[in-house]
Amino acid sequence: MKKLLMIYAVLIATFLLFLYVYAFRDASEHSDEALKGGLHGDIGEKYVMVNFQSGIDYWKSCLKGFEDAANILNVSVEYRGATQYDANEERTVLEQVIAKKPAGIAVSAINPEALVVSINKAVEAGIPVVLFDSGAPKSKAYSFLGTDNYNAGVKAAQQLGELLGGSGQAAVITLPLQLNHQDRTRGFQDTIRTQYPNMQVIAVEDGRGDQLDSERVAKKLLAENPDLTGIFATEANGGVGVGNAVRGAGRSPQVKIISFDTDKGTLDMVKSGVISATLAQGTWNMGYWSLMQLFHLKHEIVQPLADWKQSGISLVPPSVDTGITVVTQQNVENYYAK
Amino acid sequence: MKKLLMIYAVLIATFLLFLYVYAFRDASEHSDEALKGGLHGDIGEKYVMVNFQSGIDYWKSCLKGFEDAANILNVSVEYRGATQYDANEERTVLEQVIAKKPAGIAVSAINPEALVVSINKAVEAGIPVVLFDSGAPKSKAYSFLGTDNYNAGVKAAQQLGELLGGSGQAAVITLPLQLNHQDRTRGFQDTIRTQYPNMQVIAVEDGRGDQLDSERVAKKLLAENPDLTGIFATEANGGVGVGNAVRGAGRSPQVKIISFDTDKGTLDMVKSGVISATLAQGTWNMGYWSLMQLFHLKHEIVQPLADWKQSGISLVPPSVDTGITVVTQQNVENYYAK
Repeated sequence: MKKLLMIYAVLIATFLLFLYVYAFRDASEHSDEALKGGLHGDIGEKYVMVNFQSGIDYWKSCLKGFEDAANILNVSVEYRGATQYDANEERTVLEQVIAKKPAGIAVSAINPEALVVSINKAVEAGIPVVLFDSGAPKSKAYSFLGTDNYNAGVKAAQQLGELLGGSGQAAVITLPLQLNHQDRTRGFQDTIRTQYPNMQVIAVEDGRGDQLDSERVAKKLLAENPDLTGIFATEANGGVGVGNAVRGAGRSPQVKIISFDTDKGTLDMVKSGVISATLAQGTWNMGYWSLMQLFHLKHEIVQPLADWKQSGISLVPPSVDTGITVVTQQNVENYYAK
Repeated sequence: MKKLLMIYAVLIATFLLFLYVYAFRDASEHSDEALKGGLHGDIGEKYVMVNFQSGIDYWKSCLKGFEDAANILNVSVEYRGATQYDANEERTVLEQVIAKKPAGIAVSAINPEALVVSINKAVEAGIPVVLFDSGAPKSKAYSFLGTDNYNAGVKAAQQLGELLGGSGQAAVITLPLQLNHQDRTRGFQDTIRTQYPNMQVIAVEDGRGDQLDSERVAKKLLAENPDLTGIFATEANGGVGVGNAVRGAGRSPQVKIISFDTDKGTLDMVKSGVISATLAQGTWNMGYWSLMQLFHLKHEIVQPLADWKQSGISLVPPSVDTGITVVTQQNVENYYAK
C-alpha cells in the first residue's frame, strides 16, 4: 500500500513536471507574441500577395521572397492574382481577398488608379496593405517596395559608359508614355550628360514594348547612324528585338546593348554575347520585405511615440528601393529559372 | 523488489520524458539558428551604431529604434560616436569599432568622403555595414536608410499650399551648398511649380544654418515683399530665426512657416502657432531597420540565388526612405522628448 502510494506520487510528480515544462515552453513562445524570443507569428496568420498576369515568370521570385519570410516568421501565405492584364479582374480578386480579412496584403497595382478605392477600404478596415513592384501613390497603402527606375537608368549608363571606354554615340529604345520607362530613360540621359562628356544620346525611340517593333526601330537607327555603338533597351521584349537587329546588321558585338529584366530570351542573348548586360530587378527583396513590413504593421511593432495612429507617422519605411543587379556573361548562369 | 523496480522504471520514464521535452524545445529554438521558430539571434552578437556630435537630441530616437530591434531579435547593441563635429574623430571611433569585429555596424557619415576607406575595410573583412541618416554613396556599405529629402520638400510645398489655399508668394531659407538641403529646396520648388499654378517661389536665400543669420535674411525678405505669405526653412535653426522675424514684423500668423526637425525650440513655436508645421524625420525607423538589415546580412538571410556573393546582387534593399511626418499644433505634444 505504501509502495503503491509512492508510485502514485512519482506519477503525479511526473505529470506536474511535464505540465510545468510545457507551460514554460508555451509561455516563452506566446507571451508578448512577436516581441519576445525573436520575431515570429502564428501559423494561422495569413498574408496574401495579389498581382496581375499572375502566370508570368517575373513574379516567381517575388513570391519566393514572400514565402521565405513567411517560413522564417512562422506565418502562412496565399498567392492570388488576375490571370490577365485586366484591371477589373485584379480589383475583383483584391475585393475577394479583403472580404476574408487576412493579416495583410501585398499588392502589385496594374495601374496607379484602378485599385485605390479597394486598397483604402482595406486599410480603413485595419488590414495592412503594402504595394510592391508597381505602386499606387495616391492610395493609403503604407509603403511601396520596388525598383528605383531612375537609379536603374543611371546603372545602365554607367555600364554602357564602361563598355565603350567613355566615348561614342548611344540611343534609347523605350516606352515613352509609361512613367517607369520615362524614369529609366531620364536616369540614363542625365548620367551620360554629367558623367560621360565624350558620349552623346542621339535618339530616344518608341519600341512599344514589342520585339518586332523594337527590332524595326533599331534597324533604322543602325542604318542611319554608322557611328552608333550603344543601345539601352528599357524593357525585355525591346532588348531581344534590338539584339536581333544588331546581329542582323552584322554589327554585333561592336554595338553594345544594355537590356532590362531576366526572361529566358534575354538571358540567352547575354550568354551568347549579343546583349552585353541586362538589369535584374530585386524581385526577391520585394516579396521578402513586403511580408516583413506587413508583419510589423499587423503586430504593431512600431515606434513608441504616443498616439502614433493619430500622428500620421510612417509606421514602416514608406519607400524601399529593392535594387538592381547587373547581369553579364560572368554571372548569367545564376539567373536561369531553376 | 518488484515494486522497487517499478518505481525505478517510472523514475527513468520521467527522466526520459523530461529529456525529450527539453530536447524538443531546444531543437525548435536553436536549429537553423535565426531561420526557424522566428527571427532571433544570440545575445553575444553585438551591433554598433556610430555617429558624430553624439550628444545631440536628434540621435536619441535613432538609437531607440536600434535598441528596440535588438531587444526583439535578442542581440546586443553598443553606441559609439565622435562627440564633436569632427571627421577625424569619427574615423578614429569607427576604426576602433572595426578592430573589435562586431556583428555589424550602422554608420551616420559626417560627410560622404571621410569614412569610405574605413567602411570598405570593414565590408571586405566580412563585417556588414549600413549607413543611416547621412550616406557615403561611394562606399561599399550595403545600404542607406534615411530621409528622401526631395520628397520632404514636396511635402513642405503641399503643406504650405494647403495652408495658403493654393495662392500666394513663398520663399525658401536654406543651406544652398549642402546636398540634402538642395534636394529639399528642389522638391519644394518643383511642387509649387507643377501643383500650385497660383503660387510663386520669389526667393531662395542662404540662412547659413544659423538662427540669427536666418532671422536677418527673413526680416529683409518680409520688409521688401509685403505680399510674402509663406516661408519654408529647410533646417531647424533657420526655422526658429524665421519665426522670430515674422513675429517681430507683426506678421504672424498671416505669414505661414514650414520648418524642419523637432528640437524643443521648433516644437515650442509650433505649439504657439508661430510655425505652422515642421517635418519630423523617421529617425526611429532609421535605427530599427538598420539593425534589421545588419541582422539579415550577418545571418545571410538572403535570396536563394546561387553564388549571390559573386553576383553583385543587392542582399538587402540598397536604399530605404524612412519617411517624413508633418507635425502641427494638433500632434505636437507627441514629439516632445520624454
